[in-house]
Amino acid sequence: MIPIPKGYIFSTAKANFRYKNRDDLGLILSEKPAIVAAVFTTNKFKAAPIYVCQEKLIQNNYKAQGIVINSGIANAGTGEMGIYKCNKALELVGKRLKIDPKLLLPASTGVIGEQFKMECWEAGAEELYKNLGKKDIIDVAKAIMTTDTFPKISYSKDKNLSLTLIAKGAGMICPNMATMLCFIITDVSIERSLFQNILTEATENTFNRISVDGDTSTNDCVIGMANGLSGKRISDEKDILIFKKILFEIMYDASYKIVQDAEGGTKVIHIQVKGTKTYDDAKKIAQTIANSPLVKTAFYGEDANWGRIVAAIGRSGVDVDINKVLIKIGDIEIFKNGMGLEGDIDAILMPYLKKQDIFLYIDVGNNTEYEYKMLFSDLTEQYVKINSGYRS
Amino acid sequence: MIPIPKGYIFSTAKANFRYKNRDDLGLILSEKPAIVAAVFTTNKFKAAPIYVCQEKLIQNNYKAQGIVINSGIANAGTGEMGIYKCNKALELVGKRLKIDPKLLLPASTGVIGEQFKMECWEAGAEELYKNLGKKDIIDVAKAIMTTDTFPKISYSKDKNLSLTLIAKGAGMICPNMATMLCFIITDVSIERSLFQNILTEATENTFNRISVDGDTSTNDCVIGMANGLSGKRISDEKDILIFKKILFEIMYDASYKIVQDAEGGTKVIHIQVKGTKTYDDAKKIAQTIANSPLVKTAFYGEDANWGRIVAAIGRSGVDVDINKVLIKIGDIEIFKNGMGLEGDIDAILMPYLKKQDIFLYIDVGNNTEYEYKMLFSDLTEQYVKINSGYRS
Repeated sequence: MIPIPKGYIFSTAKANFRYKNRDDLGLILSEKPAIVAAVFTTNKFKAAPIYVCQEKLIQNNYKAQGIVINSGIANAGTGEMGIYKCNKALELVGKRLKIDPKLLLPASTGVIGEQFKMECWEAGAEELYKNLGKKDIIDVAKAIMTTDTFPKISYSKDKNLSLTLIAKGAGMICPNMATMLCFIITDVSIERSLFQNILTEATENTFNRISVDGDTSTNDCVIGMANGLSGKRISDEKDILIFKKILFEIMYDASYKIVQDAEGGTKVIHIQVKGTKTYDDAKKIAQTIANSPLVKTAFYGEDANWGRIVAAIGRSGVDVDINKVLIKIGDIEIFKNGMGLEGDIDAILMPYLKKQDIFLYIDVGNNTEYEYKMLFSDLTEQYVKINSGYRS
Repeated sequence: MIPIPKGYIFSTAKANFRYKNRDDLGLILSEKPAIVAAVFTTNKFKAAPIYVCQEKLIQNNYKAQGIVINSGIANAGTGEMGIYKCNKALELVGKRLKIDPKLLLPASTGVIGEQFKMECWEAGAEELYKNLGKKDIIDVAKAIMTTDTFPKISYSKDKNLSLTLIAKGAGMICPNMATMLCFIITDVSIERSLFQNILTEATENTFNRISVDGDTSTNDCVIGMANGLSGKRISDEKDILIFKKILFEIMYDASYKIVQDAEGGTKVIHIQVKGTKTYDDAKKIAQTIANSPLVKTAFYGEDANWGRIVAAIGRSGVDVDINKVLIKIGDIEIFKNGMGLEGDIDAILMPYLKKQDIFLYIDVGNNTEYEYKMLFSDLTEQYVKINSGYRS
């Protein structure tokens, strides 16, 4: 059983935006307005629901009661009409549910550039109303899937602190299918700015550290709601630390699941870069490796190809002395003193490279404490198939 | 007939470095020492022949008589031993050919991390000697191929100015198979620093503006030789302009051929970005699009997916007003005023997207003259197949 924080109910509907014979609309609703923390895409090209969501949060002093999420249509590249329709859709849902639409936040994922048909929203609102409280959070997680192959849920194991999230995403971006969404609910009460700071930091260390294809979407968002209905208040040092730790853990778990479900991906590579002269250098090296098609295809091919990793370090823009670089795959040192491991490296590494989870460790040798970790997927023929063939 | 500048002869050999039953060693030799201009990889991780080449050029005041190029072994990630063997190889070739090895430049392309077997070089030097003058420049172009599917030669059509080049490359990088090489020969006499400036500028505008997979290799180099044997001197304004123009043209032609021969690629996309606030902004946007796996797979799928192009612009780090952006594919405006083309965009663009050469035009609307052009390939299952399966 997935633990649900107090005072939240759920609903889903078949609105037929794009998919047939499956739910494509989900609702998370709190009994009473909750305070909200949120992180949005940094892409300059933002989808209509991102603008609408930001506007509502500012107008209502970061309070909201529900989140309405659809799949199939991203409502991006839809101009003023897209914003109008997004607001209209929330009005329809709000009216049927008797919730002030000002307190409903929108999120969308799907194809870019198509406008909503409002009759889908009329039917969808009706069905959301009928199913209200009859659906579980997992049904919402399923309704918001696009190229995802499994619904993504993570929750706190601590009985004294209820935090549960659903997420979707199977590519860091896929503007056709638009992206990574995450909705977090809790019943604690917590000061808004504190919640925001913790969520921002956790996002930086989890969802911002995964790479499927190096892109960033128009619709990305992480929204957290805290309704305070458990009566528990997060304010002293100790509780804040516990809250932080649990939030980080469930967001890390969700980001892991997104990489695990990467479009066409077969492996999750855990990269750790350390010993750089600055923190940014570690990040740059990790990202260059994580986004290199040649590194990604080598892992897919279970090929102990340290040359591609070293070449990616070399072109990362970071000033590195290659002779001081140490590279390990698992526990095996594959590159040291400017040269590769002697002996039959393929035979030595083969059993390890067959695993689904691969640990890649890089120390560039400056004897510092700077470090950057991230997760990335491999690159496969299936990724190309999914992304070249989807619309046609 | 490929026109050959005066005083150059060629040779090839089967040295069996890695490939069997094909030439894998080539020589370009000038009757007398030539002045040399050269551009090398910016990757911090440089192969041994890059170091050796740079050292020789400095020691000999940028003069050389021959270039010795092998395929199959990149001699990268081979440490001090790799540098020793590179020098030793040139000694063997120089001794057999009775050319001072100081005047021979090395270049290598192939797998990273494997050491040369010197007996291959002994046999190779012998065969280079036997075949000296009996081979054509196209034989050298063939001997240096790795994943290339055709040899790459470009030459001046101007009878008064002889400039010919050979190139190899089928990935912007492929450290397994290491990369892009280009060797240019001419019989004019030209001041060394002038030749260098022109070559550097031409490289910036040709080879540095192509992207197959966004990587940069350990072995990349462009080497130009001018032996002065035609007696023609490039010194007045007019001749310099003509020399510049022809050099640019043949290097552009070679860079086009490299993208055309991209690993697994089926299309050449010509991107032009303009109307940015700075030159660097145009470059950033062009490169973000050219390196986006999602844009590349969409072109492969002949999918009029402007959403992916707009999303790449949005995440390029450039401050852009999406409502002012105009995107054209061929002559068709597919995105304007923040929205996509109305109507059945797939049907409208389908015939154009079936072409091999696709023109992608982006004006971000600041009414400036800044512009950046480049060429890139699509991303296909075949690319993944080549790069995941090569070594194993």
